[in-house]
Amino acid sequence: MRIEQDRLMDSIIRIDMAALDVKVEKYSSAHPLYGGRSLIAHMLINSNVPVCRPLGRHNKFIIAPGILGGTAAPNINRISMGGKSPLTGGIKESNSGGLVAVRMAKLGIKAVVVEGKPERDALYLIKLDTNGAEILPCEELRGLGTYGTAARLREKYGEGASLSVIGPAGENEILSACIANTDPEGNPTRFCGRGGMGALMGSKGIKAVVVERNGTSGFTYSDKDAFTKTVKLVMKCVMDNSEDRDNYAKYGTPFMVELMNAKGAFPTRNFSSGRFELVDKISGKAVYDLIEERGGDGKHRHICMPGCVIGCSNIFPDENGRTLVAPLEYETIGMLGSNCGIASLDQIARLNYLCNDYGIDTIETGGTMGVAVDAGLAEFGDEDKIAGLIHEIGKGTILGRLLGSGVARTGEILGAKRVPAVKKQGFAAFDPRAARTAGVLFSTSPMGADHTGGHGMRSNIDQLKPNGHIELSRRGQALTAAFDSLGFCMMMLSSIGTRPDLMVDLVNARYGTDYSERWITELGKDTLRMEREFNKRAGFTTVDDRLPVFIKEEAVPPHYLTFDVPDKEIDTLFDFLDE
Amino acid sequence: MRIEQDRLMDSIIRIDMAALDVKVEKYSSAHPLYGGRSLIAHMLINSNVPVCRPLGRHNKFIIAPGILGGTAAPNINRISMGGKSPLTGGIKESNSGGLVAVRMAKLGIKAVVVEGKPERDALYLIKLDTNGAEILPCEELRGLGTYGTAARLREKYGEGASLSVIGPAGENEILSACIANTDPEGNPTRFCGRGGMGALMGSKGIKAVVVERNGTSGFTYSDKDAFTKTVKLVMKCVMDNSEDRDNYAKYGTPFMVELMNAKGAFPTRNFSSGRFELVDKISGKAVYDLIEERGGDGKHRHICMPGCVIGCSNIFPDENGRTLVAPLEYETIGMLGSNCGIASLDQIARLNYLCNDYGIDTIETGGTMGVAVDAGLAEFGDEDKIAGLIHEIGKGTILGRLLGSGVARTGEILGAKRVPAVKKQGFAAFDPRAARTAGVLFSTSPMGADHTGGHGMRSNIDQLKPNGHIELSRRGQALTAAFDSLGFCMMMLSSIGTRPDLMVDLVNARYGTDYSERWITELGKDTLRMEREFNKRAGFTTVDDRLPVFIKEEAVPPHYLTFDVPDKEIDTLFDFLDE
Repeated sequence: MRIEQDRLMDSIIRIDMAALDVKVEKYSSAHPLYGGRSLIAHMLINSNVPVCRPLGRHNKFIIAPGILGGTAAPNINRISMGGKSPLTGGIKESNSGGLVAVRMAKLGIKAVVVEGKPERDALYLIKLDTNGAEILPCEELRGLGTYGTAARLREKYGEGASLSVIGPAGENEILSACIANTDPEGNPTRFCGRGGMGALMGSKGIKAVVVERNGTSGFTYSDKDAFTKTVKLVMKCVMDNSEDRDNYAKYGTPFMVELMNAKGAFPTRNFSSGRFELVDKISGKAVYDLIEERGGDGKHRHICMPGCVIGCSNIFPDENGRTLVAPLEYETIGMLGSNCGIASLDQIARLNYLCNDYGIDTIETGGTMGVAVDAGLAEFGDEDKIAGLIHEIGKGTILGRLLGSGVARTGEILGAKRVPAVKKQGFAAFDPRAARTAGVLFSTSPMGADHTGGHGMRSNIDQLKPNGHIELSRRGQALTAAFDSLGFCMMMLSSIGTRPDLMVDLVNARYGTDYSERWITELGKDTLRMEREFNKRAGFTTVDDRLPVFIKEEAVPPHYLTFDVPDKEIDTLFDFLDE
Repeated sequence: MRIEQDRLMDSIIRIDMAALDVKVEKYSSAHPLYGGRSLIAHMLINSNVPVCRPLGRHNKFIIAPGILGGTAAPNINRISMGGKSPLTGGIKESNSGGLVAVRMAKLGIKAVVVEGKPERDALYLIKLDTNGAEILPCEELRGLGTYGTAARLREKYGEGASLSVIGPAGENEILSACIANTDPEGNPTRFCGRGGMGALMGSKGIKAVVVERNGTSGFTYSDKDAFTKTVKLVMKCVMDNSEDRDNYAKYGTPFMVELMNAKGAFPTRNFSSGRFELVDKISGKAVYDLIEERGGDGKHRHICMPGCVIGCSNIFPDENGRTLVAPLEYETIGMLGSNCGIASLDQIARLNYLCNDYGIDTIETGGTMGVAVDAGLAEFGDEDKIAGLIHEIGKGTILGRLLGSGVARTGEILGAKRVPAVKKQGFAAFDPRAARTAGVLFSTSPMGADHTGGHGMRSNIDQLKPNGHIELSRRGQALTAAFDSLGFCMMMLSSIGTRPDLMVDLVNARYGTDYSERWITELGKDTLRMEREFNKRAGFTTVDDRLPVFIKEEAVPPHYLTFDVPDKEIDTLFDFLDE
């Protein structure tokens, strides 16, 4: 079972959880040079996965570094995890920072593909190293939170191993369960959050993936000098974009709080307003000030993966300077904060920690809590009650299973009026009524209401008027699909997003190809095309590309506008894939 | 607002629940001669209903007698109620016996179409009589069960009025809520059970529809003599089919219990077997014997609507001869009985009564209980625990809202393995592994897993082999669609089902038309075509025409077969609509 390390990173590890068997294949050179998100789409579309039951034995769980994973390019080590989403029923790729991608890439692994289900209810971990892949029983980890699981595995496998773990929610196949990946310090702080990938991993009986650090020797470039030269140009590009970089380094993603609130697109009390009157208490500046004031473990500009030159992550300390949660991000502040009427960073951080430890997506959970509170299960702003509801999810009670199944299902069962979800996935922290490009993305993304597909909110376009969002979203979705395939972090969009020439130069120098910059666009388009095809086979139609009706009918503060990009225009968005 | 009584039964009553306003229109003679199910499809397809939120203001709730409703034909007074189903998200027509159809037809009403939603949370009743239609507040009925509601309304409006009422489940918009209609004795024993029509009625703020009996004067025929002559031929047809008629008159629908159990298609303990070892305790014979033995209120051959010449209904008494429930039917015995491991008719009857009074569908509830018990919420056969779960639904607790949302949603949230549902509607009491025609029907019916679309189980075809079910289901679905449009009861299928000539003669004699018998087939095909088109616009694809995977993979006693009619053949079923 020894993996032959290959400079072209082309080993596919196939893990059959029914037979508890491992096979190593080569990724055929007849296939396109896919990786990460595009590779996941490619592997899923050529299978019966589109029509399978997401938590059944026919689904696949795929882990794949990007095409440039493990290289010396900056911000390139995102890890993609995907399969048919238990949450949406469509295709899902969710990517994260951390160490997995670099470790896997350096082992020469292009993807790990998990198939089947264990015949009995048992828990396993997958260990990857230069000796190959092993499936090891790990009953002793059952029921442990992500933090506890990571701590136990660090003890056993040392600080150098990278870990991907699920919490009790994943074990219980809770539909909003996520996967936690360890950062350079070994803490499980980087999440494949959306689409229920933790439930998928749990359905395969896998509690953890451990990747040893010993796979460094075989990693090579076709033209190392050209690669190094291009990396310098990429770095210059990032440095030239200094304002953005400085903002993210200083404030992290919470930098977006003030911005979105000012635009009136900041979800507040279950999307009943786009502006939060107590925003100053939970803004990027507030995060910065508290970290400064409290010191201790607190940290700005935390690096979530090797090669990061931005450092948008942070460690948020409590009053005594001890880590409360890491990181504390924009989406979580919006969804577990203002959207739940909570105006305290400490409270948000505590709820965030709970979600992380149980292993549930903070965005989906925040959205669900907004709906649940709106339906009378708690009061807005009541941390204790909301924490109680999150504990229900973690404990896997029936109420918890319902809430853990996310915004759309909770809203339907509770008979809620405002159910902010598309394709059964809850909105990320953008109100489409004042963030129309995000609304177009939420409508059309093959992943459901996900912000990571290019929300366009940093672009210079009037978000209160209906025009221009289709074209902007089109470009954004193709570009992020390419980014997610290469392994680049979204934070690079504002620098090299306009430089496909640099991206393709990196690919050519790595693989000895001679692609033109058009290849980058085609990579993104290919990915979207496969994902759309997957969803079509899974039964999705244009009816699924619609925002919930309250967003089109209920005008809320501060602009008192409704979402008005016409459905007919939205349905033209993917026409460019046929061109 | 006075309704002009018309001999052609062509008044459409439009009720706007937002404006609390009533309008009376004529059904345009430019439209085809639709009624009941076909009229509902016709009215829904020419609207934005297919893409609306089922419980939102854009849905319509339609009540329509059949084309021959109110005439002297036997078994013709089924009432159709429909709209976009809150349970399936597709089109739904659910029909029932009782007095509504004949009363409405005699008032000259072709359909009542309810649109919009009350602005505030208030309850109303709709009163129909020769003076027109009125919307009256009825706050005093809030929270009452269907029996209590009917009793109060009988006191107020007299024994002669027909009633359609919802229970607390409908008020709470529980997705499996049904509508109870009164029988000739004024008891609310006839149900529009499936598809959540009670939730739809509740979402319109309507607790009850009261139809006075004073609308008899204007009812005429184009050729009374020809009609009377044809009715005699129809009666002869029924009499010639005496074995069937005698069985249904003596045993009622429970006559099917032994039959289905013998075939190995009788759902047992959440579809983990097709044969129930204690079947003798809950068979048609057992029902008959207990009614005979206990006497009192007990009754075989109960007539559920005027003009019924079969009398398949019954009144099931307790040990003291007092009514326990009426009727006790095959589907309920299967789903709340064997499927829940319950082998006592008294226990089943008590659970049945609970469902009736809360106003929830016994089929959907029985299926849900099977799933819930399988998931550990109770033991099979534990009446008290199962009754407790039904009380949760009735009380509208969160657990109750979940269970009340039916088989598919409950199964998904609880993470169940066996989830017997198609298009999010639970199976009726036929196991497709030994009832393949029913399996084909469940797969393809625009209504979801509903038995009323022609289950074919009385036909002479091998239900354990894959051949012939498509053609049989095709004929059955077209024929029942015509039946449901004319107003005929399913019990007539085995007699006049093969006599379109008689059916069309009735239509011609009533309306002065000169249709050929082919018109009957076309009526059924038209209806299915519109329903399929509705579902297509609502986002349904062939992926929704699939049985759950466990039916295709898990072989259960007594035959240890799986369902094996190929998907490709199933997808050809509706090709005949294009011919």
